[in-house]
Amino acid sequence: MDKKYEGLVKQAIEAMKNSYSPYSKFRVGAAVLTKEGKVFTGTNVENASYGLSMCAERVAIFKAVSEGYTEFEAMAIASASGDASPCGACRQVMQEFSPNMKVIFAGKEFSLSELLPRPFSGGSLNV
Amino acid sequence: MDKKYEGLVKQAIEAMKNSYSPYSKFRVGAAVLTKEGKVFTGTNVENASYGLSMCAERVAIFKAVSEGYTEFEAMAIASASGDASPCGACRQVMQEFSPNMKVIFAGKEFSLSELLPRPFSGGSLNV
Amino acid sequence: MDKKYEGLVKQAIEAMKNSYSPYSKFRVGAAVLTKEGKVFTGTNVENASYGLSMCAERVAIFKAVSEGYTEFEAMAIASASGDASPCGACRQVMQEFSPNMKVIFAGKEFSLSELLPRPFSGGSLNV
Amino acid sequence: MDKKYEGLVKQAIEAMKNSYSPYSKFRVGAAVLTKEGKVFTGTNVENASYGLSMCAERVAIFKAVSEGYTEFEAMAIASASGDASPCGACRQVMQEFSPNMKVIFAGKEFSLSELLPRPFSGGSLNV
Repeated sequence: MDKKYEGLVKQAIEAMKNSYSPYSKFRVGAAVLTKEGKVFTGTNVENASYGLSMCAERVAIFKAVSEGYTEFEAMAIASASGDASPCGACRQVMQEFSPNMKVIFAGKEFSLSELLPRPFSGGSLNV
Repeated sequence: MDKKYEGLVKQAIEAMKNSYSPYSKFRVGAAVLTKEGKVFTGTNVENASYGLSMCAERVAIFKAVSEGYTEFEAMAIASASGDASPCGACRQVMQEFSPNMKVIFAGKEFSLSELLPRPFSGGSLNV
Repeated sequence: MDKKYEGLVKQAIEAMKNSYSPYSKFRVGAAVLTKEGKVFTGTNVENASYGLSMCAERVAIFKAVSEGYTEFEAMAIASASGDASPCGACRQVMQEFSPNMKVIFAGKEFSLSELLPRPFSGGSLNV
Repeated sequence: MDKKYEGLVKQAIEAMKNSYSPYSKFRVGAAVLTKEGKVFTGTNVENASYGLSMCAERVAIFKAVSEGYTEFEAMAIASASGDASPCGACRQVMQEFSPNMKVIFAGKEFSLSELLPRPFSGGSLNV
């Protein structure tokens, strides 16, 4: 992991404190770094109807986009287990914006393109 | 609609500017007011895999929760059509936190309990 | 509840046996009756990434639609707690196809229009 | 692609005919083969609230699970563009049941483990 991301990892860990996870009891935090150098944090927000639960990674991205930031350099993920990787849904939402962003978890750094090879993309839809 | 929510409605309208909606071309904005008086805005964030799209209302709530605010007084919703109501999924996410919050759209004020009667809740799960 | 739906309720109860719910341990079953008189059953299918979990009600509808049936007369819901109502997301998916369908749970019969008043609909999108 | 999957691909193509996709106009079909040799088909089922749309791949799996089948050998995917790969959410739902299943699209055969490396899994949750 590039040393320059150590601060981002700390922010992901810090974001875990606001986790709303009464169902899984599994706290997750995320911090996304935009191309402009801004950081947005997220945490998981669960729901009694399990399928309406939302992951920390996507909350971080939704916050950034809603504030006008749509290009990402890297995301760090922290979790109760320490090694959780992003789920497929989160990978797809990252893919929408920054197919080559870095993703950091379990103390290692990956490219999103390694984590979601042959991605489904808007190109298929002819948008 | 209570006059005190006019500012909230304006913030929902303003939030539409960051809408990421290349698939529907339907811009939505939302602004949620917490019990403490803080406002968080959201906008819809779509995805090439349509099912991973997220509504403005939930983005606003996820932002608030991720910043430590989990009790809501009211939410205002603005949209390209001017009269869009929150979808059922957004109603359920509001229900998780504040079953009696106010929901404002189309120039009118509703209670969430009117919009999602006999709600599914965590009580059923014995959490 | 109309007596003619007693069989549908039984099918919803029977459908619970296939519930895949290792995370919530909350078994749900559903049975939807099409306008043509066909019945499709569903059960909840959960996921380690909680947000990818799916409710029984939507599984029943997705099955019907994928077999070419898109108009529904009624849905019965059964659950471990005996009284669970459909979540907002399921109400919205029912709304897409049959806004006036009957929804049966806790031994009572409702109209979807009572359970999801002022629904968000495709009309807002000008589809 | 193994010749033995040619029939499965045909069933995925055939399943496209029931696609409910008024919003994207993008028809998708899927066919999943269980360990027992049964095939379940699915198609995409969209919703006015885009986020409640469901992919063909998950519909096929939900159908199978709701009928008592939870182990999969292979899934074939067909789409209007001919080459669409499964989105990240669908890969995660496959992962829940059969991490090493085959996934066939664009005339090629992949292992799910190639398409979703370092997957998030229930193990992280200590279920």
